[in-house]
Amino acid sequence: MKIILDLCVVPLGVGVSLSRYITACEKVLQEAKLKTTLHAYGTNIEGEWDQVMAAVKRCHEVVHQIGSPRIFTTIHVGTRIDRDQSMEDKIASVRTKMK
Amino acid sequence: MKIILDLCVVPLGVGVSLSRYITACEKVLQEAKLKTTLHAYGTNIEGEWDQVMAAVKRCHEVVHQIGSPRIFTTIHVGTRIDRDQSMEDKIASVRTKMK
Amino acid sequence: MKIILDLCVVPLGVGVSLSRYITACEKVLQEAKLKTTLHAYGTNIEGEWDQVMAAVKRCHEVVHQIGSPRIFTTIHVGTRIDRDQSMEDKIASVRTKMK
Amino acid sequence: MKIILDLCVVPLGVGVSLSRYITACEKVLQEAKLKTTLHAYGTNIEGEWDQVMAAVKRCHEVVHQIGSPRIFTTIHVGTRIDRDQSMEDKIASVRTKMK
Repeated sequence: MKIILDLCVVPLGVGVSLSRYITACEKVLQEAKLKTTLHAYGTNIEGEWDQVMAAVKRCHEVVHQIGSPRIFTTIHVGTRIDRDQSMEDKIASVRTKMK
Repeated sequence: MKIILDLCVVPLGVGVSLSRYITACEKVLQEAKLKTTLHAYGTNIEGEWDQVMAAVKRCHEVVHQIGSPRIFTTIHVGTRIDRDQSMEDKIASVRTKMK
Repeated sequence: MKIILDLCVVPLGVGVSLSRYITACEKVLQEAKLKTTLHAYGTNIEGEWDQVMAAVKRCHEVVHQIGSPRIFTTIHVGTRIDRDQSMEDKIASVRTKMK
Repeated sequence: MKIILDLCVVPLGVGVSLSRYITACEKVLQEAKLKTTLHAYGTNIEGEWDQVMAAVKRCHEVVHQIGSPRIFTTIHVGTRIDRDQSMEDKIASVRTKMK
């Protein structure tokens, strides 16, 4: 089952500067060879359910390992069986109508 | 890794009455023998990461099977390694301070 | 415009114990005389858009005032113009089908 | 109070093709002269609390007007009083550390 997921990992108990932890997550996603796009509130990820969810779990493990005692993560996940759709398709279908 | 997760499954392309699909998800969680609490915007779930995430995936499969061509799901997931905390603990720690 | 909203306020930079801040938010909602239900991942709130959103803003102001330098909040908000629906209706429509 | 917000509007009861409604929201944000970035799961918005929230409310009004009887929206909202931070700053602080 293919998914497009939005991942926003928020480490707690590590002060207010979170980019070190977000960077660690980006590296996990990169190592998992997932297609991703970073934005100001998370990362869009495209891939197979099991592969993407394994990477999300790995993010939690790594963020704990490098020092965060508690993590709060929000995820948006979409699946569809009517047709194939990529992250670029989603954006393009809005951009085209904006013109 | 133990998690407390909040699951909100939104089936698309099936009109405005969604309770049939939410009920199907509740049954999936029940069959998975997970500890859950239903609220007006989702379901709190407590359990091991792999077990809970397998149930979330099963919810998507079942909701597609019973007729929804597209699903949008939001998830909140929390993990902590500093101490053990249940769903009831989280609520109780606020309720106590309210008095 | 009537809304049912789910509010989850996560204060950052204040360590791992957040219940003091969540309690402050609950008091803000109580003072606003909003109908609410606390769960393990947030608070369901029912009311008019402007009244509820003013309370959400007040939560941010208060949580900053009592010491949190940064706040990450997630909100689910639903509106419908086809019919009236309360938080209890949403839960009941699932509970009935579970039987 | 300045905020960075992530907005994801999901119209219900209008089938599976949602881009017409998302486009209407993008136009609302454009008319409000807000700084925005569209991604595959929503739109990052930067601005003053009241101005941004008024635009979010306007999105609900417009999406109902053009035909959606029910709307489910998720919002991430961040505020901080320790320092000023833009959407670009958030992304840059991760990108720099990735090198």
